[in-house]
Amino acid sequence: MSELMNLIAIDEAIETLNQGLNSELTTEKVAITEAGGRILAQDLKSEIDLPPFSRSTMDGYALKAEDTFGASENLPAYLDVVGEVKMGEKAETKINSGQAVAVPTGGMMPPGADAVVMVEYTEKMEEDEIEVTKSVAVGENIVQQGEDIAAGDSLLAQGHLLRSQDIGALTGIGITEVEVFAVPQVTVFSTGDELIPPEEEPEMGEIRDINSYALGSRITKLGATVNYGGIISDRKEELITNLEAQLDKSDLIILSGGSSVGIKDLTIEVLNELGEPGVLVHGVSIKPGKPTILAIIDDTPVIGLPGHPTSAMVVFEIVVVPIIQKLAGRKEAEIKVQSQVSAKLSRNVASAPGREEYFRVSLEERDNQLWATPSLGKSSLITTMVEADGLAKVGLGTEGVKQGGMIPVILFD
Amino acid sequence: MSELMNLIAIDEAIETLNQGLNSELTTEKVAITEAGGRILAQDLKSEIDLPPFSRSTMDGYALKAEDTFGASENLPAYLDVVGEVKMGEKAETKINSGQAVAVPTGGMMPPGADAVVMVEYTEKMEEDEIEVTKSVAVGENIVQQGEDIAAGDSLLAQGHLLRSQDIGALTGIGITEVEVFAVPQVTVFSTGDELIPPEEEPEMGEIRDINSYALGSRITKLGATVNYGGIISDRKEELITNLEAQLDKSDLIILSGGSSVGIKDLTIEVLNELGEPGVLVHGVSIKPGKPTILAIIDDTPVIGLPGHPTSAMVVFEIVVVPIIQKLAGRKEAEIKVQSQVSAKLSRNVASAPGREEYFRVSLEERDNQLWATPSLGKSSLITTMVEADGLAKVGLGTEGVKQGGMIPVILFD
Repeated sequence: MSELMNLIAIDEAIETLNQGLNSELTTEKVAITEAGGRILAQDLKSEIDLPPFSRSTMDGYALKAEDTFGASENLPAYLDVVGEVKMGEKAETKINSGQAVAVPTGGMMPPGADAVVMVEYTEKMEEDEIEVTKSVAVGENIVQQGEDIAAGDSLLAQGHLLRSQDIGALTGIGITEVEVFAVPQVTVFSTGDELIPPEEEPEMGEIRDINSYALGSRITKLGATVNYGGIISDRKEELITNLEAQLDKSDLIILSGGSSVGIKDLTIEVLNELGEPGVLVHGVSIKPGKPTILAIIDDTPVIGLPGHPTSAMVVFEIVVVPIIQKLAGRKEAEIKVQSQVSAKLSRNVASAPGREEYFRVSLEERDNQLWATPSLGKSSLITTMVEADGLAKVGLGTEGVKQGGMIPVILFD
Repeated sequence: MSELMNLIAIDEAIETLNQGLNSELTTEKVAITEAGGRILAQDLKSEIDLPPFSRSTMDGYALKAEDTFGASENLPAYLDVVGEVKMGEKAETKINSGQAVAVPTGGMMPPGADAVVMVEYTEKMEEDEIEVTKSVAVGENIVQQGEDIAAGDSLLAQGHLLRSQDIGALTGIGITEVEVFAVPQVTVFSTGDELIPPEEEPEMGEIRDINSYALGSRITKLGATVNYGGIISDRKEELITNLEAQLDKSDLIILSGGSSVGIKDLTIEVLNELGEPGVLVHGVSIKPGKPTILAIIDDTPVIGLPGHPTSAMVVFEIVVVPIIQKLAGRKEAEIKVQSQVSAKLSRNVASAPGREEYFRVSLEERDNQLWATPSLGKSSLITTMVEADGLAKVGLGTEGVKQGGMIPVILFD
């Protein structure tokens, strides 16, 4: 038995691969309407103020705040209306003490005015006079020029994933095209003599390929492009031919299957022969997923996942997702919070110390608290993943988590 | 002042609109490689067993479990090796008492065998004899025929969003095409005389359109198709012409802007004139977002959102997302848990009872607990959204939440 694997911690394994990756990423310019979900390849500063002028946030009258000081229902202030600001037009009329100008929500503040009183607190006396029944402070009901974004402000940094609000902020300052990182091209192969494509009828002993499609769908969801490499039988020449054909075209190659010892040794042999530096890691201290292989062949990372669908998908989430995000140019700091939530365990789970352990959970919201129920089941059963909402994690140093304990959960989407 | 809005609760508003929607949704067939993220339009049952035969989950020997009972390092059992199962081939050799067949991980179980002993607990004595040093139970290290999915089992229901594991389960049972609901076509307009497209230089008083692009990006992210209708000025004829041009082509029309009273009245007037039943709701008890309008014009829902970007985006999340999900055919029951998480508040927030209140929060994971820090700021500032990770909710009946209290947060993605 050549079962002498050097198990290494998952973070160390990912770091080892990342260190070996070419950090030069391709970039491209895209229209802002296509930029949602892409990763920014430039730091973006604003060259202008947003708003470009001070605006009223209410329907009302622009005026000098001091003219309203002390005003009330019993003791109104009286002001001369000297004009009206129209939406989308320049406010020309200058306001002097004792004067007001009608202004709509979003309208430009006229020169000389420093506050807006809401129309609800005014009454028209004559065509050109209003009664004001409420005192307003300087700056009240105004958004100042540059208050949202000031000229020169850094808005978004390289490596940021562009969300819908970011897209809106960019059109607001006139940016209609952005430089983003190219979408990674990921090739997936399934390996194994027993596998057939899903459209074929299996003979006895044959099994339809699950992993190519489960992983391919996940790759697409992550915003990368998937290239279905197909099924590779457990023969050295076929493994070599297939990998060689895709190495140049791929930013990442994923193999799944071949967890049995002989096949795993064959895969390692081939990956070491194909190019430098070859296999960097084989065996990580994670359950499920121990037989994972991380390799780099002439700048292209190649990852060997276990054959069982659940194991392959778990290792994909834990190991492959961060690598795809790195290849996509995403900044590491902003990734964690959103994909992971905390939930309370609905029953005890055991775990062996010395490895990270992941188990599938169903989630339920009760009393403003998220509860996770572990779904135990063989990792070769894809239905245990179909029934789950996420993956709960028990860390390296613990022997399990008790019922009611908090546990981090990676959500499936 | 015609500020006599009948504010209604948000759930009631959405329900009112949903009741009026045409429930006949268009469907289409798509290849399984394109089906991730789509909503299933059919109930799916399996016609076959998965796996189609019992398989070993380990490298080892298939045998009769009873032949190993009592076996140990000190008292091994001895079995005759009568064959070897090859990956992907039918297991032909029948096993009798005292016999074993070599079997790889994933290999078919030979007839007569009811367990597998791992190769680690065996030693080859001669070419055709092994020593077994561990007792195995019936069924050990086997996945039984149909254990993952049994023929006739319901696998996925109409209205289910297809995730990557679902795609894998479907290819596993030979389903390579599925019937899904058509992607909703959503038209977005921004309204206001002050608005210009982002590629233009604003004159004094003019503002670049933010909402079309922020909302458009969000619509795309949700898996719907966005049609940028452009900017509509605050004139009745232009509103009518633009809406009429898009009604037939759209499954949903979103207007944003026009929160000021005169414009809002104009919008309501136009929506009531254009077709039946017209405006169903104007004014919902939500902050920000009170002036929201929900209408249906001849089967097409039309939603009027506030003009301030943050308000528009908040109402979009709370009101429009469920409507798009409904138009996409998604089953309501499966939506909630995944988009919402619970977090601890890092400081007190106040809220007026009688309305739902949403505020932007930054999230941070500390000590296995998600903490939410409210970012207070004017809802006209898009940067308050850029800096936020999600929306925290204070419900109708409460006057706020204290520091350390748990609060539900809708994550931005």
